[in-house]
Amino acid sequence: MGAYNVKYKERNFKGNNMTVDLRSDTITKPTPGMLDAMMNASVGDDVFGEDETVNALEEKTAAMFGMEAGIFCPSGTMTNQIAIKCFTQPLDELIADQTAHIYRYEGGGIAFNSAVSTRLLNGYRGIITAEMIGPEINAENIHYPHTSLVALENTVNKGGGSCYTLAQIKPIAELCRNKDLKLHLDGARIFNALAHTGDKAADYGQYFDGISVCLSKGLGAPVGSVLLADKATIKYARRIRKVFGGGMRQAGFLAAAGIYALDHHVDRVKIDHAHAQILSEALTQCLWVSNVLPAETNIVLFDTIEPATIVLAKLAEHGIKALPTDTHRIRFVLHLDVHPEQVEYAVGVLKGM
Amino acid sequence: MGAYNVKYKERNFKGNNMTVDLRSDTITKPTPGMLDAMMNASVGDDVFGEDETVNALEEKTAAMFGMEAGIFCPSGTMTNQIAIKCFTQPLDELIADQTAHIYRYEGGGIAFNSAVSTRLLNGYRGIITAEMIGPEINAENIHYPHTSLVALENTVNKGGGSCYTLAQIKPIAELCRNKDLKLHLDGARIFNALAHTGDKAADYGQYFDGISVCLSKGLGAPVGSVLLADKATIKYARRIRKVFGGGMRQAGFLAAAGIYALDHHVDRVKIDHAHAQILSEALTQCLWVSNVLPAETNIVLFDTIEPATIVLAKLAEHGIKALPTDTHRIRFVLHLDVHPEQVEYAVGVLKGM
Amino acid sequence: MGAYNVKYKERNFKGNNMTVDLRSDTITKPTPGMLDAMMNASVGDDVFGEDETVNALEEKTAAMFGMEAGIFCPSGTMTNQIAIKCFTQPLDELIADQTAHIYRYEGGGIAFNSAVSTRLLNGYRGIITAEMIGPEINAENIHYPHTSLVALENTVNKGGGSCYTLAQIKPIAELCRNKDLKLHLDGARIFNALAHTGDKAADYGQYFDGISVCLSKGLGAPVGSVLLADKATIKYARRIRKVFGGGMRQAGFLAAAGIYALDHHVDRVKIDHAHAQILSEALTQCLWVSNVLPAETNIVLFDTIEPATIVLAKLAEHGIKALPTDTHRIRFVLHLDVHPEQVEYAVGVLKGM
Amino acid sequence: MGAYNVKYKERNFKGNNMTVDLRSDTITKPTPGMLDAMMNASVGDDVFGEDETVNALEEKTAAMFGMEAGIFCPSGTMTNQIAIKCFTQPLDELIADQTAHIYRYEGGGIAFNSAVSTRLLNGYRGIITAEMIGPEINAENIHYPHTSLVALENTVNKGGGSCYTLAQIKPIAELCRNKDLKLHLDGARIFNALAHTGDKAADYGQYFDGISVCLSKGLGAPVGSVLLADKATIKYARRIRKVFGGGMRQAGFLAAAGIYALDHHVDRVKIDHAHAQILSEALTQCLWVSNVLPAETNIVLFDTIEPATIVLAKLAEHGIKALPTDTHRIRFVLHLDVHPEQVEYAVGVLKGM
Repeated sequence: MGAYNVKYKERNFKGNNMTVDLRSDTITKPTPGMLDAMMNASVGDDVFGEDETVNALEEKTAAMFGMEAGIFCPSGTMTNQIAIKCFTQPLDELIADQTAHIYRYEGGGIAFNSAVSTRLLNGYRGIITAEMIGPEINAENIHYPHTSLVALENTVNKGGGSCYTLAQIKPIAELCRNKDLKLHLDGARIFNALAHTGDKAADYGQYFDGISVCLSKGLGAPVGSVLLADKATIKYARRIRKVFGGGMRQAGFLAAAGIYALDHHVDRVKIDHAHAQILSEALTQCLWVSNVLPAETNIVLFDTIEPATIVLAKLAEHGIKALPTDTHRIRFVLHLDVHPEQVEYAVGVLKGM
Repeated sequence: MGAYNVKYKERNFKGNNMTVDLRSDTITKPTPGMLDAMMNASVGDDVFGEDETVNALEEKTAAMFGMEAGIFCPSGTMTNQIAIKCFTQPLDELIADQTAHIYRYEGGGIAFNSAVSTRLLNGYRGIITAEMIGPEINAENIHYPHTSLVALENTVNKGGGSCYTLAQIKPIAELCRNKDLKLHLDGARIFNALAHTGDKAADYGQYFDGISVCLSKGLGAPVGSVLLADKATIKYARRIRKVFGGGMRQAGFLAAAGIYALDHHVDRVKIDHAHAQILSEALTQCLWVSNVLPAETNIVLFDTIEPATIVLAKLAEHGIKALPTDTHRIRFVLHLDVHPEQVEYAVGVLKGM
Repeated sequence: MGAYNVKYKERNFKGNNMTVDLRSDTITKPTPGMLDAMMNASVGDDVFGEDETVNALEEKTAAMFGMEAGIFCPSGTMTNQIAIKCFTQPLDELIADQTAHIYRYEGGGIAFNSAVSTRLLNGYRGIITAEMIGPEINAENIHYPHTSLVALENTVNKGGGSCYTLAQIKPIAELCRNKDLKLHLDGARIFNALAHTGDKAADYGQYFDGISVCLSKGLGAPVGSVLLADKATIKYARRIRKVFGGGMRQAGFLAAAGIYALDHHVDRVKIDHAHAQILSEALTQCLWVSNVLPAETNIVLFDTIEPATIVLAKLAEHGIKALPTDTHRIRFVLHLDVHPEQVEYAVGVLKGM
Repeated sequence: MGAYNVKYKERNFKGNNMTVDLRSDTITKPTPGMLDAMMNASVGDDVFGEDETVNALEEKTAAMFGMEAGIFCPSGTMTNQIAIKCFTQPLDELIADQTAHIYRYEGGGIAFNSAVSTRLLNGYRGIITAEMIGPEINAENIHYPHTSLVALENTVNKGGGSCYTLAQIKPIAELCRNKDLKLHLDGARIFNALAHTGDKAADYGQYFDGISVCLSKGLGAPVGSVLLADKATIKYARRIRKVFGGGMRQAGFLAAAGIYALDHHVDRVKIDHAHAQILSEALTQCLWVSNVLPAETNIVLFDTIEPATIVLAKLAEHGIKALPTDTHRIRFVLHLDVHPEQVEYAVGVLKGM
């Protein structure tokens, strides 16, 4: 493992400057412990259902969220897109916030994969309510697509890591049941939401028909997401995963990292939240920053007086990498490859600019 | 033809009460002259390209709008949906106002027929501008669908018959050309827009890649729309019409009504506009009406203090039929089967309520 | 109506040569009686369900075939494509003969409109059996699309008007019920099949989930087909017709022709069958013909020693129009615009070649 | 690595009986060397294009086959399905053998993912010729889908590992270029074909528009395939992979196994071919076997007198696992987890039955 660690260090420190990569929590690389778990995984051909590590991951994740079954997929986009296909038919419409990842960042998959229309709401930082959803459910009329699905995202990426509490979710779930709509959760960063709200994963299953749980974001696994639902839905999901080409053979190497992450990295997202707070507070003191959105979880969104591209170039000179989300808005994402000394360094850079 | 005329009168007058059907301009029935044109049409098998009346209608309409070619279809929904398919591919996105007929009232066809995503703008009474469109064109990025089409509607049905002038359209067309986007016009009520703005049909062709012209709304033909575009697009459109099942055999009977309408009913939409003004003015004086939108063309939208369903029931008692467009909003549509004495009668009813 | 009749005669007789158009039974033009029915039709806006002639046609056709409900569409392609969408979902597969119109001549609509795979059988002149279908029903396996529909065509166009008897259909229907498959009939020429087999239309409903009945082929109406099914399916079919753009406004003009055809033209297809026999017998005596397929109904398929294009050119010199179906195969289709004297004339031409 | 090797042995030997898993070459598990390569891979976020091991695999595979670029995907189904989408549009048709994996075993993806029709040929053991393809290219006609793609499979799985030589491929490629069709190769087992025919990988690129190369079959990598094409196609393929959800983050762990396989396992497929010959010869001597297809590569197809299920149950008693491909047909697949002593053992079992 020695070579790995050396390489790891080289990645993050360049001469006097540190590299602090705040572009996304997807860039994390396995820790030595995770890598060890991967390499000792017992694998098999998952297309035959014989990869015991994949099976264990699917069962473990389902159990955590109080759902019947799970299916491991190469990405969160795939788990979301499969869920949308499971819960709709062509000629249907889904309701989501206008910032939703499934609508904005999945390549137009709602229409492409499912031939489904989209009704978008204008939530507060991506958070929508039952009151907003109700009037947008189409009446039965051949002119209108048939509303069949509501999709939430928790935390909301484009909202800057904003969270739903379960108390906010309950009335939406109730509306969906009354109106015979399915309810899906894009839980790309669900563990960040749980850490912030104090809600329990096990309480989620009763409110959702489908939950997509990402392993490769805050949890730090290299690849994959698990879609959770009831057994019949997951059986059908296997058919859809197949037709997308998402069935992998000895996927247990990846699943082992997921299991390790669920065992070791769930609680530690609070460290990322604390780091986000530190950066957020530093930014509020910077004259070149016009606004900082409240950092609820591991994402900090802030607006810059100069164009974001100019600010990002300056940050890059100091080894700090980040992405713009608008012409004058920048996003910092904290994750397990950002260590306390890097946060401290970044604070220094921000204040000195 | 005598029997027809008698039946016609019976339809509109019931005892002392008149029937005034303001639900839609689609409900008109052929005039005796139009019926005569239909009856004497020379027809053939249009699937073999041998219906000379259909061919004449397609050529006539294209010439009117300064476009190369046309294709006659059973409905405006079909001409719009074919245009969308012609101007996009799966994984693409189109931009339209959030009230657009193609998005709201065509059964979810954008996603169903074309697997295309929709980016919706919040125009003023459905009227959008180049300034609004520009920022919503997606950058080239595999996460985003590829923006390839802008669709306008003139007049805007859901906007209450609101109009674009050509002066408003030009900068949009320019933007589209610069950004390599196609521009389609849903001209379900284009002749109403032309009557109001004074723009010329012949000037439209240069700005649009596709125009859908409806014959069965203000023009009073029983069935059909014509999609206009260049020859290559119309050739491809015939393939799409075929796969939808929109190819008709001896369609010349319907096309003859369309030709008659283009020859005789284009100018007369001004009568409907005048009628709309009369009703609009009457409504502004009604205490049970909270708001009347400016009636630019043949549609009057107004808001009611009581729920629309209650108001509509009262109107129905007096033989006035209309449709709600929201919980407290009602739409009146004027058309060639609403005669001056019916307008006068309706004014009396409205004021007496 | 005088002008119409004169025009009618001009169409068919050119100098000493007659024109005999055997290309398709779709080319027929309304008889004076049918035209009269069309022009006296009581019409309304069918999108509002208010065209009483359309309603009457739908009910009449459903009743004839012992089915619950019907929907009038612009073409047989649309009724077939709607039926396929009604009876399948994406990821499904349908079974049909490899010559099936739905597969060969509907623009690839099975995949385009319904995202459905096709398993093709090699029937005798397009006629398939339960024994052939059984082994092609996919087992439940995520690698295979889910077999959900069997589609028959009666008569088989590409088979040369070959017929199923109800006795042949029954075991297929039984298999479908046992295997939970839907069974659709493309009845583009169902009245030709009934005339040949002596089966009753009223007995068909019990065996099929959907039946498409064309009015514009042997029956001689200008436009349209009716899809028959149970009420729930037809309700859903209205949604699909809408999204294809197949909803027409005052379609009663066309429906009236259909009602007239059902009342007056069903029995007369036997005349076309007799004409087909006469041509078939003449062809068997022609040295330039290598093979004549048995002419069961109104279609004659025969093989030529010279390439079909050369033979067709010679026929055209004598005013006889027909189409090739293969490099050395020609199709004659008899219909109500081919009169006895034209058949006699054609026999003379064929024998003289 | 010791634990791994012990586990490995336990997997294959149960008491006196060996386990010989001949179900598929997809079941192989990484060798210690491959696992070591995986463990030491330098990884990054491939969605940002920063996984240098993935990049290296894509470049290496493209270079091997003389093509411009490659894209790594979770499965051969995905590389095939992406290729089909790249090379077609809705309303198109592809031509393939009726046994083709893309048609039979990819969940109906041709219709589902690409809305494309399929024209199937009846090749000899899945091998089709230019002469067979030519007449099945549809003429330009709105009734027919537009033929745009030919897909070959080499070796043919369902043909029993039958091979195309490049000499057989050339006239097909020439036809495709003349007719403006794209040509795709499903190279799930392309290295088996190369080993058998002696053709060179580097000569393939000039004949194909797309090649799918599987790493997880004969090559023994745990997961993944690479699609090869020109740069523009691969750029578009990244968009399609995204919308399917096939983009993985730190996929370098898997790619490293692929690189190792290309470096170490290409030549060794000849061992599998030799093993297939040994089993094939043994089977020809078995009285319970009615027919053995020539074993060109690593697959042996044979027909049994008793139903396949009964024979498979007997084989399973002796630890030999295999799959049926028809009611009386069984498939043996040789691979790198079948060692000489297992082949010898299997021969004994077969002869003793």
